[in-house]
Amino acid sequence: MFDLIIIGAGPGGFEAAITALRKGLNIAIVEKDKLGGNCLNRACVPTKYFWIGAHTIEKLKVFNEYGIDIKDFSLDYSKAWEGKEKAISFLRKSVSQLFKTKKVPVFKGIGKIIDKNKVKVLTEDGSEKIIEGKYILIATGSKPIAIGNLIPDGEYILTTEDYMDKLKKLPESILIVGGGVAGCELGYIMNRYGVDVHIVELKNRILPLPFISEEAAKLIMRKFKQLGIKLHLETTVEKLEIKNNKVFVKLSSSDEIMTVDKVLLSVGRKPNTDIDEIGLEKDEKGFIKTNEYLQTSVENIYACGDVVNSPMLAHVAMYEAKVAVHNIVEKNKKKVDYSLIPSAVFTVLEIGQIGLTEEQAKEKGIETITGYFPFMYNDKAVDEHEKEGFVRLIFEKNSKKLLGATIVGASASELLHIMEIAIKKEMTAEEIHEFVYFHPSLSEIFAYATYDIAVGSLFRK
Amino acid sequence: MFDLIIIGAGPGGFEAAITALRKGLNIAIVEKDKLGGNCLNRACVPTKYFWIGAHTIEKLKVFNEYGIDIKDFSLDYSKAWEGKEKAISFLRKSVSQLFKTKKVPVFKGIGKIIDKNKVKVLTEDGSEKIIEGKYILIATGSKPIAIGNLIPDGEYILTTEDYMDKLKKLPESILIVGGGVAGCELGYIMNRYGVDVHIVELKNRILPLPFISEEAAKLIMRKFKQLGIKLHLETTVEKLEIKNNKVFVKLSSSDEIMTVDKVLLSVGRKPNTDIDEIGLEKDEKGFIKTNEYLQTSVENIYACGDVVNSPMLAHVAMYEAKVAVHNIVEKNKKKVDYSLIPSAVFTVLEIGQIGLTEEQAKEKGIETITGYFPFMYNDKAVDEHEKEGFVRLIFEKNSKKLLGATIVGASASELLHIMEIAIKKEMTAEEIHEFVYFHPSLSEIFAYATYDIAVGSLFRK
Repeated sequence: MFDLIIIGAGPGGFEAAITALRKGLNIAIVEKDKLGGNCLNRACVPTKYFWIGAHTIEKLKVFNEYGIDIKDFSLDYSKAWEGKEKAISFLRKSVSQLFKTKKVPVFKGIGKIIDKNKVKVLTEDGSEKIIEGKYILIATGSKPIAIGNLIPDGEYILTTEDYMDKLKKLPESILIVGGGVAGCELGYIMNRYGVDVHIVELKNRILPLPFISEEAAKLIMRKFKQLGIKLHLETTVEKLEIKNNKVFVKLSSSDEIMTVDKVLLSVGRKPNTDIDEIGLEKDEKGFIKTNEYLQTSVENIYACGDVVNSPMLAHVAMYEAKVAVHNIVEKNKKKVDYSLIPSAVFTVLEIGQIGLTEEQAKEKGIETITGYFPFMYNDKAVDEHEKEGFVRLIFEKNSKKLLGATIVGASASELLHIMEIAIKKEMTAEEIHEFVYFHPSLSEIFAYATYDIAVGSLFRK
Repeated sequence: MFDLIIIGAGPGGFEAAITALRKGLNIAIVEKDKLGGNCLNRACVPTKYFWIGAHTIEKLKVFNEYGIDIKDFSLDYSKAWEGKEKAISFLRKSVSQLFKTKKVPVFKGIGKIIDKNKVKVLTEDGSEKIIEGKYILIATGSKPIAIGNLIPDGEYILTTEDYMDKLKKLPESILIVGGGVAGCELGYIMNRYGVDVHIVELKNRILPLPFISEEAAKLIMRKFKQLGIKLHLETTVEKLEIKNNKVFVKLSSSDEIMTVDKVLLSVGRKPNTDIDEIGLEKDEKGFIKTNEYLQTSVENIYACGDVVNSPMLAHVAMYEAKVAVHNIVEKNKKKVDYSLIPSAVFTVLEIGQIGLTEEQAKEKGIETITGYFPFMYNDKAVDEHEKEGFVRLIFEKNSKKLLGATIVGASASELLHIMEIAIKKEMTAEEIHEFVYFHPSLSEIFAYATYDIAVGSLFRK
């Protein structure tokens, strides 16, 4: 009998595995697909890979400013696709190598919990195997959803996973349904590699997510338009027909029929909860029900990641995995705490978000005061030709304690962690201002964005 | 009479000016050269500019991994030089524009304190002007030193300032005397732009500075050799002769005479202290003597930056400037605190350093335990083709509190701030480990570098 059976080897399952191994547990892993899960194989990691390519394409135009004269170049997305495969297979191998070294059995197949201590593994060849564990961790992740008449067919109507798995050659044109994170990220990438990109979004802005401020979304929309990405806001797909290798689409915003090569669905994900025969409780939204220790309705069975009702982010899964394994092994249980979860979006500019936006603070009835600084006057950003973007810091009005930070611009997804610790440690505008930042660094924007509040305004009189 | 006269408009003087303006002071500035000082015009900012060019040249070879096929390119350093000029003149203009908007008089010339409230400005045309101030801040910076028989002539024997001001066209070969930060940074840049670079260093390693660990210096030396930069360690320049447009050099390490086009001196800097006729006290090393409030021996005269005995770094000057102006205006005086000063070096890999190295902790008699993680297994670094480098975290052995961090690799100069706050806030290995980092991000190296200490080793048995 294993100490712990982990179902799913995505970011949650992997993190649980290495935490459990470090705590001396005897573990087994069940994975129906590739090690690393969607995050490594079809989402976070390959998206950032392509983003680096897209961003590099954009930067080519400033290379002559560094004396690098590119006389001739061409783009070949299929090579980027191969590069992406190389990168993720290197990482996948490092995971499998680790499991081999630590002699962790990886059962390839679909895991089903048939008893509180038993997992039945259905392998591809149809055979079954039953393994036993004192504890079970469900980390089975999620899958893309379809909406209405938009049924993915893997050829013309694609999910984001089809995109990563199959689209080695890009179409000439694409309609992306859903202007959320994945839609905007892939839309930007395809645009930079030469695709005619349309994005359809039901709401009146792209990235219509509570953690993305109006201010950030507006800047990205403006930049998208400059790049030639066509945004169809407050729009739905009314009709869709596939004919002669093309997709004919009728949008609610126009009487004309639009013709594209492909449609990409990016309208959300649902948890993979078809994993037990023992009646594990689910919540009203269909997620596996867990308590604050990440225990399911069955005491020795835990769950983490997209399969539970928390932000569907790889790092949330990783965090939950650590908490769950801790709670399996240790007596002093830890509660999950979602109060500080970073977010980032990679398009024409990076967006990094931590804590509350101004809108969210207002909704909570908190009086705020904000600090702002544009990258334009940051020396390092000027050096990097990355003058676009800004930081907006949100403080509680009286205490001047930091509540949230929105960073739009270079390295936002890294810089946000500085503000994340600042929020966690309840730092005030003055403390953030007086902190010594390396010069020149992008991080100095935080010193400048706090000047008005900590010292006084330059232009108050 | 002005509230405050600031002598020197480098990073210290500028920061003092905007802090003073925000505090409502009526100020005047005296500057003998360009606004922005050496930092903006001849050191930090242009060095990073050229570094981005050099690093981009190095990255060209992985562009095909992103489907960007560079068929033909050429390097022209003089264009990089022009780009650098554009960048720094943009920043300089933003400074001068601000002073204009705020109606701050900028007196062009050499400032000399002739009385505790009077500064005599000697302008280039020989005229003199005397201005009066309640307070005076000395922020006159430093200048390069020469050693022994190596006398800069601005043509064959260059200072780092000559390099930035004059070297629009690079020589074919150069000998850099001094393997410190500036020597290594400029050596790397020139190497990437095609120069045959030799570095002579008295000590047995490059970057022989207490805040750079052996481990970091060794990695950079190995990479330098791979790039073809020739290191002459434990070596001095014994003889030097200029003949037929060439410099003939006899090094202590060889009997042969080496021929190079130029010699770059990078052996240190000394404070610009020739600024008064009132007998301001200096310390034994020749710096302006200040107390912990940055007051000189004359009560109403303060000093900050390279001219006082503290680390010769732009951000130290900026920090001191804020403290000095605060102490001029406010009743609750602040003491300067140099306990957390970040450092970074930009060569083939970035080095970011905060707090103590292992060697420094040992010298202080502190028992340590360290955490390590290579960038190689960081997903984002793999995406970026930036797999080289590592993070080394130094913890106090019993409390597991963070004492220091060395980061060698991508974005080290930004990431170090995350560890800087962690040290300031006395975070333990466990806290750093459990912190939620965005995935995938380079910042995740901190979660992995703390795994062994916070959770347990993977390979302890």
